[in-house]
Amino acid sequence: MTIKGVIRTGLIQLRVLDMEKSIRHYVDIIGLEYVGKAEDGRVFLKGYDEFDHHCVALRETDTAGMDFIAMKVESDEYLKEITEKTIAFGLTVEHIEANSDQPGFGRRVAVTLPMGHRLDLYAEVEMAEDTPMTMNPDIWKQAPRGMAALGIDHALLFGPNVDLTTKYFTEVLELSITEVLKNPENTGNMTVWLTANNKGHDLAILEYPEPGKLHHIGFKLEDWHAIGHAADLISVNDVALDAGPMRHGITRGQTIYFFDPSGNRNETFAGGYAHYPDHPVREWDFAHVGKGIFYYTRELNERFINVVS
Amino acid sequence: MTIKGVIRTGLIQLRVLDMEKSIRHYVDIIGLEYVGKAEDGRVFLKGYDEFDHHCVALRETDTAGMDFIAMKVESDEYLKEITEKTIAFGLTVEHIEANSDQPGFGRRVAVTLPMGHRLDLYAEVEMAEDTPMTMNPDIWKQAPRGMAALGIDHALLFGPNVDLTTKYFTEVLELSITEVLKNPENTGNMTVWLTANNKGHDLAILEYPEPGKLHHIGFKLEDWHAIGHAADLISVNDVALDAGPMRHGITRGQTIYFFDPSGNRNETFAGGYAHYPDHPVREWDFAHVGKGIFYYTRELNERFINVVS
Amino acid sequence: MTIKGVIRTGLIQLRVLDMEKSIRHYVDIIGLEYVGKAEDGRVFLKGYDEFDHHCVALRETDTAGMDFIAMKVESDEYLKEITEKTIAFGLTVEHIEANSDQPGFGRRVAVTLPMGHRLDLYAEVEMAEDTPMTMNPDIWKQAPRGMAALGIDHALLFGPNVDLTTKYFTEVLELSITEVLKNPENTGNMTVWLTANNKGHDLAILEYPEPGKLHHIGFKLEDWHAIGHAADLISVNDVALDAGPMRHGITRGQTIYFFDPSGNRNETFAGGYAHYPDHPVREWDFAHVGKGIFYYTRELNERFINVVS
Amino acid sequence: MTIKGVIRTGLIQLRVLDMEKSIRHYVDIIGLEYVGKAEDGRVFLKGYDEFDHHCVALRETDTAGMDFIAMKVESDEYLKEITEKTIAFGLTVEHIEANSDQPGFGRRVAVTLPMGHRLDLYAEVEMAEDTPMTMNPDIWKQAPRGMAALGIDHALLFGPNVDLTTKYFTEVLELSITEVLKNPENTGNMTVWLTANNKGHDLAILEYPEPGKLHHIGFKLEDWHAIGHAADLISVNDVALDAGPMRHGITRGQTIYFFDPSGNRNETFAGGYAHYPDHPVREWDFAHVGKGIFYYTRELNERFINVVS
Repeated sequence: MTIKGVIRTGLIQLRVLDMEKSIRHYVDIIGLEYVGKAEDGRVFLKGYDEFDHHCVALRETDTAGMDFIAMKVESDEYLKEITEKTIAFGLTVEHIEANSDQPGFGRRVAVTLPMGHRLDLYAEVEMAEDTPMTMNPDIWKQAPRGMAALGIDHALLFGPNVDLTTKYFTEVLELSITEVLKNPENTGNMTVWLTANNKGHDLAILEYPEPGKLHHIGFKLEDWHAIGHAADLISVNDVALDAGPMRHGITRGQTIYFFDPSGNRNETFAGGYAHYPDHPVREWDFAHVGKGIFYYTRELNERFINVVS
Repeated sequence: MTIKGVIRTGLIQLRVLDMEKSIRHYVDIIGLEYVGKAEDGRVFLKGYDEFDHHCVALRETDTAGMDFIAMKVESDEYLKEITEKTIAFGLTVEHIEANSDQPGFGRRVAVTLPMGHRLDLYAEVEMAEDTPMTMNPDIWKQAPRGMAALGIDHALLFGPNVDLTTKYFTEVLELSITEVLKNPENTGNMTVWLTANNKGHDLAILEYPEPGKLHHIGFKLEDWHAIGHAADLISVNDVALDAGPMRHGITRGQTIYFFDPSGNRNETFAGGYAHYPDHPVREWDFAHVGKGIFYYTRELNERFINVVS
Repeated sequence: MTIKGVIRTGLIQLRVLDMEKSIRHYVDIIGLEYVGKAEDGRVFLKGYDEFDHHCVALRETDTAGMDFIAMKVESDEYLKEITEKTIAFGLTVEHIEANSDQPGFGRRVAVTLPMGHRLDLYAEVEMAEDTPMTMNPDIWKQAPRGMAALGIDHALLFGPNVDLTTKYFTEVLELSITEVLKNPENTGNMTVWLTANNKGHDLAILEYPEPGKLHHIGFKLEDWHAIGHAADLISVNDVALDAGPMRHGITRGQTIYFFDPSGNRNETFAGGYAHYPDHPVREWDFAHVGKGIFYYTRELNERFINVVS
Repeated sequence: MTIKGVIRTGLIQLRVLDMEKSIRHYVDIIGLEYVGKAEDGRVFLKGYDEFDHHCVALRETDTAGMDFIAMKVESDEYLKEITEKTIAFGLTVEHIEANSDQPGFGRRVAVTLPMGHRLDLYAEVEMAEDTPMTMNPDIWKQAPRGMAALGIDHALLFGPNVDLTTKYFTEVLELSITEVLKNPENTGNMTVWLTANNKGHDLAILEYPEPGKLHHIGFKLEDWHAIGHAADLISVNDVALDAGPMRHGITRGQTIYFFDPSGNRNETFAGGYAHYPDHPVREWDFAHVGKGIFYYTRELNERFINVVS
């Protein structure tokens, strides 16, 4: 294998206000599969095209947002190596035992990022019961449901200390920067897009005064046709649309933003270029932020800038 | 960066019988960009979405086929490391100086594979003059032409010693196996699909008595819509169709096969899953080869099996 | 209204060998809606985008094929007018009372065509219970199922006396000819495509020694993406594929042919030009029949020519 | 032929401020074909999929807007018949000689609508030199350019007296109403969609104090994929976007609105249902106007309501 070290964003635990409505949203509309429920009431979901046990955990509580996001790494040995480097970098880590709160997951190392978010790192996770076929496989066992999300794609995190967090991501986790957005003063990066693989981003981070905020969690769709179908489902099901269907200048992905019933922003995302580590970083100056994010209208809407969870 | 070692298939030199017709085919119909011409008459082409100097070299001669295929690696240091390992593995290598025959390319190490093909490895290549934009980039400078091939995707090679070649690819180059097709006797692999990244394959190899044969070179298209448009262009332009539009069971890609004017088989390929190194290998027994390659008809056509260049 | 006289092909009664399998095929896979069942066991189906009571009646018996096909006309007055003209033309007609065998349908006039098929004409039919919305309508109430057939599109009938039948269709029913395929001797038309509206065809007729045969019944899909999804469903559900996904030269439609469990050929059809009555007739000589029907491969398969029901 | 009487909207003469920029817009970006230039400097264009001589005439002057829109009817006899009925209805008509100002066009009858617009009616027009093929036709001679507009689709006209104009369109021209939007007081129709064929609309009319205004002229695209490609071209070419890509609730079409360099609003439109004259009229109350026009965001933008030419 030549994808090494950190492999991908693999798990997010979201806080939701109403579990029943959330399941309807993520399962019936977005099309994730229901995997199971914990004794404490948390619900686990996965994309139909994923092998790992689950990629979303939903926790019912009284505020929306993200408990943590997690990235899978190549091996436990590598996990030890980056844990040491993380501590040496100056971040605090917490050790979470295998199978303690995420069924099927091996031990995790929870890192508190300079932006205030918790990032878990893990090397082991059991395969889901219902994975894609592997012996003379059909493309799927049955036609995907709803928006037909294949699985988790990426997240955009808002918080302070983007520079230090970027340093951590690139120097310790060895993520690649795909694109950067300069701040209005052009003195540094306001937003950085980072990837562990061919995707345009596994994580993006935006400088923001309040720590630990989630702008959106993105799920992967097949193509532009699927984006249009997602838009149709949003309207027919009275889902709160944020923006789209449209394209990003940044990542070149085709996209639609909307909110889950708790106010967490979701994105369904398709297309975009394949990133390779020898590609140059794409740069955006602040004057072009509209084109970068909302490639067609070239103007961000207020809600997109101000609403986070 | 966490894509390390071998990065991707990046270059193929094809033998063609008529340069003018070949340029019309690869540039006007497939949509590659014309980069330039060598003093010896060879012509260099690239995909509109690629950064490197070129991805296809065409050499006019009296037999079709492939002179060599080449993979890009992360660094010259790594190139040295795998060169030693290649020699230790027992394969012969030849050293090719920078800018000697491929303008813009750094030094290459040419490996003679057990299957009889020449595989070049290289770490350095200059950026093309006309790359995708990197400063407040548009998605493209002008709408892609013809089939709108983004760039090179993969190749399928036919020759003897698939097992030994697989061993070399996985142990020395550390490629990941994505899928295997068992031989009729179920005693080993008849075909192996290998990747250096998230693609379903950078290279596939098939056991065949004659060494050094090319089954097809694949170019990447955007999606199923682009596959249909490619089919339309094939018919309108009287290109020799082989099979498709269709889907593969293997890689799950959407595809159409056709021949260049010299009889080299081309594929235009879209979609398919994103491979990660922690995914299980998908296996096909020989009885399902039809479904694996021609997912809709489930039967290979004679031409697909017997015609190579 | 300026679509007058004959409006469209609106109903077909098919003979099937196994009702349960047929329902699974037409409802779960093709995506028609189950409307209801007659006391004699016949089952009625409709497309999700149709207003009329039903468009397909399935009758279980021991041979596959078509009992009759039916076209809707603008008014009972017009029905009387063409009934008289039909008799004057020399064809026999039979009168079928309203609601006698097709629930919701007004009286029908059954014409025995020179090709041996029974063509019913009717002016009145009740709206289905579950029609598309008409008050502040959503695009659909829920996402279409399976191949997402919108409704019936056309049929291709095989039988003798194409010339006389064409004369009847154009002179009495005032259908427009959109395309013709010349016979091998170029002495007349082997196949004629006819329409009552903007579609490429409501009916096509092909000269064939055996009377009253059905080559295929076509259902309308949204676009090329839907054709690809239909192909995926065919393979995953082990439906017997005939040909495609592909495009026709004739009508320019995008298409896939397959068989229902009884051996009746189905087509799912999308795209194609919009016909207007002032457009010239497109002509095909016999040497180009391959290109006309199988626009990509340019060769008909044996099954397509020889298998009818 | 069973499409009778009025056949379709076939021609619009637009006023533009700068001919060179307008040609670049309509030919290079929208993809119409350049047909020729009149001695007075007017330029004629057509869609690649149209047979008639031209569908757009551009006239350079100092205000944007529409000189007239024109509908083709089945025959000169029918033209005489509706001319008499038009006069009897109380509208003034003007007779325009064949080939006087629109090359290739037969005589026209220019009707001044109660809304203030000029509607021309004509029965005869020469075929263009460069029509779609009719003998063993390819789907197109070369791949369509730019947005790949197939031809003219419809227009939305703003002006007073929608009720009286509707009466004229339905009683004299026998157009079908497909949808209506009620006024805020629910005392009548604010907007009416009318068709002569299977399209969702050939013309739509909206009650507005100022007479003779053009809201937009719509061109037909192939499908949702083409809408997305149009959006890409709009952004890359700095065309002034109005709204979309999106779907309409009304007509169910997929759409994007933008402005030509003179400020005339264009629409590129795909999909939508096939209308038949036996279909019920779809009704929208004023509270749902947002959903009806901007099906995804459900809110009209200010520009869409207030900018006409």
